[in-house]
Amino acid sequence: MHNEQRERAQHALQARKIERALFAARASVLWLSGFAPPVNLGPNPFAGGPPLIWYAGGTWTLLVMESQAADAATSGLPLVTYPDYTIAAPITSATNLAAVLRETTAADSAKGPIGVELHDCPAALANVLPAGSELTPIDGRLEPLRRRKTAEELALLRRNFALVAEGQRAGRAAVKPGNREIDVWNAVESAIQAVAGRRVAVGNDCTVGYRDMNIGGWPLDLALRPGDSFILDLSTQYGGYWSDSCATYYAGEPSARQIAMHNLAAAALELAIDRARPGAVSGAIDAEIRRFIADAGYPVYPHHTGHGIGVTPHEEPRIVPYNRLVLEPGMVVMLEPGIYLPGETAVRLEHAVLITDGAPEVLTSHRILLC
Amino acid sequence: MHNEQRERAQHALQARKIERALFAARASVLWLSGFAPPVNLGPNPFAGGPPLIWYAGGTWTLLVMESQAADAATSGLPLVTYPDYTIAAPITSATNLAAVLRETTAADSAKGPIGVELHDCPAALANVLPAGSELTPIDGRLEPLRRRKTAEELALLRRNFALVAEGQRAGRAAVKPGNREIDVWNAVESAIQAVAGRRVAVGNDCTVGYRDMNIGGWPLDLALRPGDSFILDLSTQYGGYWSDSCATYYAGEPSARQIAMHNLAAAALELAIDRARPGAVSGAIDAEIRRFIADAGYPVYPHHTGHGIGVTPHEEPRIVPYNRLVLEPGMVVMLEPGIYLPGETAVRLEHAVLITDGAPEVLTSHRILLC
Repeated sequence: MHNEQRERAQHALQARKIERALFAARASVLWLSGFAPPVNLGPNPFAGGPPLIWYAGGTWTLLVMESQAADAATSGLPLVTYPDYTIAAPITSATNLAAVLRETTAADSAKGPIGVELHDCPAALANVLPAGSELTPIDGRLEPLRRRKTAEELALLRRNFALVAEGQRAGRAAVKPGNREIDVWNAVESAIQAVAGRRVAVGNDCTVGYRDMNIGGWPLDLALRPGDSFILDLSTQYGGYWSDSCATYYAGEPSARQIAMHNLAAAALELAIDRARPGAVSGAIDAEIRRFIADAGYPVYPHHTGHGIGVTPHEEPRIVPYNRLVLEPGMVVMLEPGIYLPGETAVRLEHAVLITDGAPEVLTSHRILLC
Repeated sequence: MHNEQRERAQHALQARKIERALFAARASVLWLSGFAPPVNLGPNPFAGGPPLIWYAGGTWTLLVMESQAADAATSGLPLVTYPDYTIAAPITSATNLAAVLRETTAADSAKGPIGVELHDCPAALANVLPAGSELTPIDGRLEPLRRRKTAEELALLRRNFALVAEGQRAGRAAVKPGNREIDVWNAVESAIQAVAGRRVAVGNDCTVGYRDMNIGGWPLDLALRPGDSFILDLSTQYGGYWSDSCATYYAGEPSARQIAMHNLAAAALELAIDRARPGAVSGAIDAEIRRFIADAGYPVYPHHTGHGIGVTPHEEPRIVPYNRLVLEPGMVVMLEPGIYLPGETAVRLEHAVLITDGAPEVLTSHRILLC
């Protein structure tokens, strides 16, 4: 798995004459190996630290807890494991990890600086790297390499976009007067997990239009009334990769104003999708879509027009004002213009597009139009 | 919030002559401040690192992202915030956090070593602490202080135990032939969130007895057949604190063997609860319960007999063979004996008890008996 990713990374490391490197960011380890421990419950009480990848002499070694070995083995990478849960002694996973990292890195005879993701590598682990070696920050170095998705990644993204469509379908049906935000959420989460046949991490916004902050937020105990707008911005994380999507539904019949706002947002999204082609400048797309909303006389949304997606839910290419990044085939971009009237009503519509040599391919399949 | 926690911590730091300290473990920051960002989606793409607490001159300062400031303010602690999400520039949260940490720690005139949770503090953050100061590991130092729960913590734990009872009730009803593990899970998770009126992180095991590894695991696409046993080990995390609980249900009627196993597990649990009193040695309780199972002719469970719970789902007092820790009033202990016949059937029953000066108080209210 993920051979192409490691080839790209190796090329980039060699270009910087880095022969040894320690990757500690979840996104990096996942992108390099495909290993994706679940995120849903926060820190694993038996983990000694994050999963790590040690790169030396052209070999990528994955360091994980013993209880993760079976899952990690699917990466095909050499594994180093450390003891975690036991009833025979106090749990000392953190020092166990430091010990195997010390041993693994000492065994290597390469010289020169060691690249380290210092913002994600715990200090206690950086401290056991070979004495006398300079530690060079490599934080963020993989991000440019992650922009163009591999075929393997596109398959996982497509799987997630299919899942999120199930969630949108269930959400659409659940947006009705009397239900609360949390009821809509339960319908959505259950539908996604029922289809996946397993637990799936699900985000993002599940918010009724009469909230003061109606751009988004997690679902609460707020009841839907007839005519309320409802933003359902859904993401899934399955196999380590994310999806995203946003639709706006109405509890009962939308008003004439809501219909006008909805149709304008749909037109803005259509325009954005049409612009998502190789050679387009991210910031130029952003500017055009904001202008489109403003020219129609509506307040311009305060958030991004869009963003990339992959092993993280928000990455390059960011479709934001300052960004001069040029779109390339293989990038996957979320596009999500919105219009917000705080405390009254709101609309946001979002699709994912794959940048291709030809026309943009829409990867999301949820229904965003009113009828 | 959490004044008593900080008093205990200050006392412990002073006893070690540590006047400055950086806490970086999620559990530590939460226990010291009450600040609990959600865990359900993994790393926040806009976070520059973990929330931190800087202790110096008797003052506790909480360092969080700007977008977390409102939530963090409920701690009542002085806040230092750093910029995170923006559309005006690239997102540089990690370097922003390092910058404010450098500034905050440089402003302090105290001398001597700086205590640091080195297994959780990113190397890039340890690197910006005042030059020339020795960094002393303080990993795990708060753990002994966390054993006896405060009144504030007990209230949060009770809230979680009430939530988890709702999940058990829904799970009990959903365990029937034709449903799959994931269907039971959806019923459970929805019930908990419907009552809470918001999203709740939910664990742990939702597994049919015919699995080879039938001790536990996340729910899959496995259908329940008549007579299958079903282990539902549920935890919730709400307000940063956890609950836990385990019941065993049957799809249809349990067999005579299953009834005998169930009744024995219930008797083992009853015995364990009775032993959960001040002065009891953790390892002695563990030994007695294992012996009880073995004497009845069943294989002894390979896991702990129990564990503490609080800002983490598994902590001291661990009720395991080696442990000489003595129970004290104010500790909360999960007790969970089980019997497993791999690939056939399994039973585990779990309650939470508060150690008191008198009889143990059972904090969980789910039904564990067969009738």
